[in-house]
Amino acid sequence: MSETFDIIVLGGGPGGVAAAIRGVQQGASVAIIEKDKWGGLCLNRACIPTKLVCFAGDQLLGRAVEAGLGLASAGAGLDFNRLRGQKDELVSYLSLGTQGLLGSHGARLIAGQGKLVGKGQVAVGDKVYSAKKVILASGATWVKPQFKGGDLPGVVCPDELLSEKELPGRTLVLGGRAWGLEVAQFLASAGKEAVVVEAGKNLLPDEDRQIGQRLRGIVNQPPLSIQLRTEVTGLSRDKQGLKASLSGKGPAELVVDRVVYTERRPELKGLGLDKVGLSELKVDEGQRTKLDWLLAIGDLTGGTMLSHLATAQGIVAAENALGGQSRVNLRAVPRVTYTRPQVASVGLDEFQAKEAGYDVQVGVVPLGVNAMAMILGQSDGVIKVVGERRYGELLGVQIMGPGAAEMIGQAALAIQMEATLEELARTVMPHPTLSESISDAARAALGWAIFLPKQSGA
Amino acid sequence: MSETFDIIVLGGGPGGVAAAIRGVQQGASVAIIEKDKWGGLCLNRACIPTKLVCFAGDQLLGRAVEAGLGLASAGAGLDFNRLRGQKDELVSYLSLGTQGLLGSHGARLIAGQGKLVGKGQVAVGDKVYSAKKVILASGATWVKPQFKGGDLPGVVCPDELLSEKELPGRTLVLGGRAWGLEVAQFLASAGKEAVVVEAGKNLLPDEDRQIGQRLRGIVNQPPLSIQLRTEVTGLSRDKQGLKASLSGKGPAELVVDRVVYTERRPELKGLGLDKVGLSELKVDEGQRTKLDWLLAIGDLTGGTMLSHLATAQGIVAAENALGGQSRVNLRAVPRVTYTRPQVASVGLDEFQAKEAGYDVQVGVVPLGVNAMAMILGQSDGVIKVVGERRYGELLGVQIMGPGAAEMIGQAALAIQMEATLEELARTVMPHPTLSESISDAARAALGWAIFLPKQSGA
Repeated sequence: MSETFDIIVLGGGPGGVAAAIRGVQQGASVAIIEKDKWGGLCLNRACIPTKLVCFAGDQLLGRAVEAGLGLASAGAGLDFNRLRGQKDELVSYLSLGTQGLLGSHGARLIAGQGKLVGKGQVAVGDKVYSAKKVILASGATWVKPQFKGGDLPGVVCPDELLSEKELPGRTLVLGGRAWGLEVAQFLASAGKEAVVVEAGKNLLPDEDRQIGQRLRGIVNQPPLSIQLRTEVTGLSRDKQGLKASLSGKGPAELVVDRVVYTERRPELKGLGLDKVGLSELKVDEGQRTKLDWLLAIGDLTGGTMLSHLATAQGIVAAENALGGQSRVNLRAVPRVTYTRPQVASVGLDEFQAKEAGYDVQVGVVPLGVNAMAMILGQSDGVIKVVGERRYGELLGVQIMGPGAAEMIGQAALAIQMEATLEELARTVMPHPTLSESISDAARAALGWAIFLPKQSGA
Repeated sequence: MSETFDIIVLGGGPGGVAAAIRGVQQGASVAIIEKDKWGGLCLNRACIPTKLVCFAGDQLLGRAVEAGLGLASAGAGLDFNRLRGQKDELVSYLSLGTQGLLGSHGARLIAGQGKLVGKGQVAVGDKVYSAKKVILASGATWVKPQFKGGDLPGVVCPDELLSEKELPGRTLVLGGRAWGLEVAQFLASAGKEAVVVEAGKNLLPDEDRQIGQRLRGIVNQPPLSIQLRTEVTGLSRDKQGLKASLSGKGPAELVVDRVVYTERRPELKGLGLDKVGLSELKVDEGQRTKLDWLLAIGDLTGGTMLSHLATAQGIVAAENALGGQSRVNLRAVPRVTYTRPQVASVGLDEFQAKEAGYDVQVGVVPLGVNAMAMILGQSDGVIKVVGERRYGELLGVQIMGPGAAEMIGQAALAIQMEATLEELARTVMPHPTLSESISDAARAALGWAIFLPKQSGA
């Protein structure tokens, strides 16, 4: 006889953990299966380790500002051994904490590789567990590059790079999205050379292109360099190191110590989808598959891979597994790049909004007019607020500046609540803060910014 | 013949500047009068200079965290001469910028001390200007302590302290509210001794008392010390310095180099209220006085003195001066203390909400469970969300933690928009951020926090 649960969650990353806890909270018996470490890729190998080193890098890059304020400065020295130790300690602590959290809520934790073997049946090794509903949450994994030589030693994913004994002297980073830029800027902050190649014509190709351009102007400084419209066509190893052949207008060849790949792919392999008659994994906005007992969430379902989206989908899936009618509002899900300055956004940018047919009103506030940005010595950012003209509905917000990751929460809430530009314009933000410029950008969109010089035509 | 305007604004601080620009934006002719520097007390003598040194202090106090991450550390050395120079430069730049901003919008700038001399008439020196509406915005000024010896040399306001050649070795700071704590912690961050005396039984007596207590536990470390339920009863000067007599259970006497006072009083003197038949200055929620041509805003109107409140009132006053029906929602106005960690709040705390008769639901998330707080090395903060049970309406949010000043913007917007706990609970915050704990605190209030161990009784 197999053990039976109301819900089995397959995968112990952020999405699975949220699903399991939300299930228990609604009175269900829940088992959660994890093949590796509790907390998944995000906690153990992606978000948490990289954001710790991004914070360290941000502090290193801020040393010049500190010196300008008269603070004793120690230069950009970094004892990477110590940072790696802190990273490992933090990750272990959080992983144990996740395990404890699940246990405290009364979820049954099962270690091992889970696989669908029939309707509501999941095998782990030679044991089979049954459930009324199964929530797939096995996430994604870093995927090696497809070009020739992409599997050579020294071609590593971000967490492998950060687990090495020493930081490499020269690194080629594949991709100018969040992961690539974060890793490259960290290396540069520690004085190491990093070259980012991005196939697109802008950094952060999924973000507002003006912000991508502006960010490039800031981060593209030695020892970090950026090559747009460039791809690696092949890789070989010789005595000097890894030799990469590049397309594009820059150098045709580059010799480096490490190549870092930053793309991820859903972990569909070994899930046993074929055993339950599924040739692909598709979900509706309630995270339901076409099988009435099967739901799926997070990176596994493709699209934009964001751990907080997975968490939100986990909550929704657990509610819907128990008869609920929940859904995630995808337009209200924020995105963040943890560079210095940070970039964060939610909803549509002005170009996307125009393409979608909206009559667009845009408000732009350069942080050069913001007192807190000047205090922080980071006034090269910008805040953009995008709305539509007919009802004044807020469509999106883009922020480049220190603390953008936290500030974007305001915008996420505003879009979640279907705020108007007027409502955002009337919100009283504390002084001095960067947030003031969000309200003023909303006012700018409406033609009455207070802290900008008179707008032409306004 | 006197020059005539639609609106005269008396005072060039944050409130007056916003009023003048908002007036011009609606097509009015506007004059604005300032007796000292453009930008007023906030920009020149309060918010901006103190927040710059708070940032410097925060960085100094963060050196221990940096060292733990393997970053080369230079200790807590501070070249105050250089910091003061940066402060003076920043303040001058912003003041000039404010002047330029007003000019670009087409306001008429008048330098001098303005005084009401009749209905719609303001005298500056021997000139008299007329307007259909006058908006009083002359703000507040630091007020010397009333005890004996309160006018001795060495008894200074925060901006006087920060304009001296050197930081004093030992300072007595009067008052455990934002200004006092900010100044004291900055001094301590630079290795100088600071003693804060507060008459109340908690730090930040206007804030949630649990947060005040928790903050005390963090900041009350040498060379900073805090004495609650304590007041200065008198002051004298001898060879050793300023000798303060103290009430309370601590030492009865304290010898210091400087005493810093941190209270402000509305600048009513010399306004000429008596000339227009007013014995006191009272405003309604639209900033109107009982005279149909006279409005007043900001610190001048007493109550909680906050520059961003003044700004909001300035906008409202300019709109109402021109026939509008605007008002500021006082419950949605945030408050911030720029210590390390920062404290920020908006709306009612749980004790105020209970006193107001609400059936209260409170969610508390200690930042010890927040991954970003751990990354930042500041996990001793807390987030509290307060709602009422009947409609689930959000009543207030209190945050103690790094970046609270920016995060409170979310809560201000939520209260402005009359959000429910459920709406806040469902907002997707990016991971990893501190903001995630705002959503989870809302869920905790509703009994279903995801990232807290199982709640008893939930």
